[in-house]
Amino acid sequence: MYITGTHAIEEALPGAPKGSVLYVSSSYKNNDNLIMLAKATSGIVVKKVMKTALDEMDSSHRGAVLCIPHVKASFSSSQQSLREFLEGIQNSDSPYTVLLLDGITDPHNLGAILRSSDQFGVNLVVLPPSRSASINETVMRTSSGAAMYVKVAEGENINQAISLLKKHGFWIYTADMDGEDLNNVSFSRRSAIVMGAEGEGVHNLVKKNTDYTVRIPMCGHVDSLNVSVAAGIILYSRYVGVR
Amino acid sequence: MYITGTHAIEEALPGAPKGSVLYVSSSYKNNDNLIMLAKATSGIVVKKVMKTALDEMDSSHRGAVLCIPHVKASFSSSQQSLREFLEGIQNSDSPYTVLLLDGITDPHNLGAILRSSDQFGVNLVVLPPSRSASINETVMRTSSGAAMYVKVAEGENINQAISLLKKHGFWIYTADMDGEDLNNVSFSRRSAIVMGAEGEGVHNLVKKNTDYTVRIPMCGHVDSLNVSVAAGIILYSRYVGVR
Repeated sequence: MYITGTHAIEEALPGAPKGSVLYVSSSYKNNDNLIMLAKATSGIVVKKVMKTALDEMDSSHRGAVLCIPHVKASFSSSQQSLREFLEGIQNSDSPYTVLLLDGITDPHNLGAILRSSDQFGVNLVVLPPSRSASINETVMRTSSGAAMYVKVAEGENINQAISLLKKHGFWIYTADMDGEDLNNVSFSRRSAIVMGAEGEGVHNLVKKNTDYTVRIPMCGHVDSLNVSVAAGIILYSRYVGVR
Repeated sequence: MYITGTHAIEEALPGAPKGSVLYVSSSYKNNDNLIMLAKATSGIVVKKVMKTALDEMDSSHRGAVLCIPHVKASFSSSQQSLREFLEGIQNSDSPYTVLLLDGITDPHNLGAILRSSDQFGVNLVVLPPSRSASINETVMRTSSGAAMYVKVAEGENINQAISLLKKHGFWIYTADMDGEDLNNVSFSRRSAIVMGAEGEGVHNLVKKNTDYTVRIPMCGHVDSLNVSVAAGIILYSRYVGVR
């Protein structure tokens, strides 16, 4: 996986696994800080290469590309990872937040949502097998590297995930325009939040399986917020409630 | 100004000024609803054209382009518009929210922020003359047409705007990582919120002129939220306080 962009590389470096390589080209100035930071980070190698080598990795580089050897295990796509997560927290009474994304196809939105998930203590993000962006370089860059720190279960059927979460004591909250005012919602210790695609919203079956529907109060002319903004507001609201 | 994208056009149509034209190409199906909606909207003309004509307007069209003849007066760039706004509210004791954007250069972020501004009752968005995206087609599309409904004062010097707002009874709240916890902030009846660029934040002089700095409480590894998410959370927080 290649990460470009000074800010994204800076953020990703501390969490980058051993064997990651920062490739830099000397035709670009202004990367001295990045190089220093990479050298100071354990397990990261810095290599000087020709600009053309960077072009081949990712044409949007600005003289530096961070190459991460393989995607972290937590990003691997398997039904097991939600199960594993649930088994792992079985005997814990800490608060947990799981975020289920039903049809978020824009990688920029997914990246921004992962960034918010990192900030607001989401313990697991669940993505369906289809109609979903997956964790790629654009997502990584848009997340400013936060995708490195957020546990993601890819390829989970959303309705099965909801059933499983319920069995493990989670209450399901689905964002919907006809729901209860977010400002009046108290989230339970184990909360799973479902966000649907912009315009379409969540699937009917998902809505049927939810415990609560939640509406962000608003007064505008246009029907809804950007989905990453809406997710951010709900996660913030949950976070200030449990911290 | 050209607007493309079914959702953006649907949202923009009711607010589109007289003389706007919806251009459609019969090589595309699925635009029947748009055409019906446009025909039902007073002052909008529907014209069938060749696909190549649409390509020339905006290559990202999917068979339909809404052409708005001239940008609304509220988008025109002048120091006067903040003054005009302030003169207009002089004798009102309703709550007012002004949003100042100091260095938001990404049009997608600006679009999402305008959409949130529409939803959370922002009365005026102030943009500086440089280091800022301006209201263009990308912003319009990303805002899902909300940019049509939000008053924008472009080309205002942010520090002068702050002085002027203060003289008119506004309190200035600047988003900053070292600020007071947003969850504990009570916004005043006349609130001006300043958001800076991601990474850099607001200018030092702006920070010096602010009445309060406000921090979104969070716990992540990466240093901040996407700026449109952060703006959304602060505007939401302000909105639920005053509604």
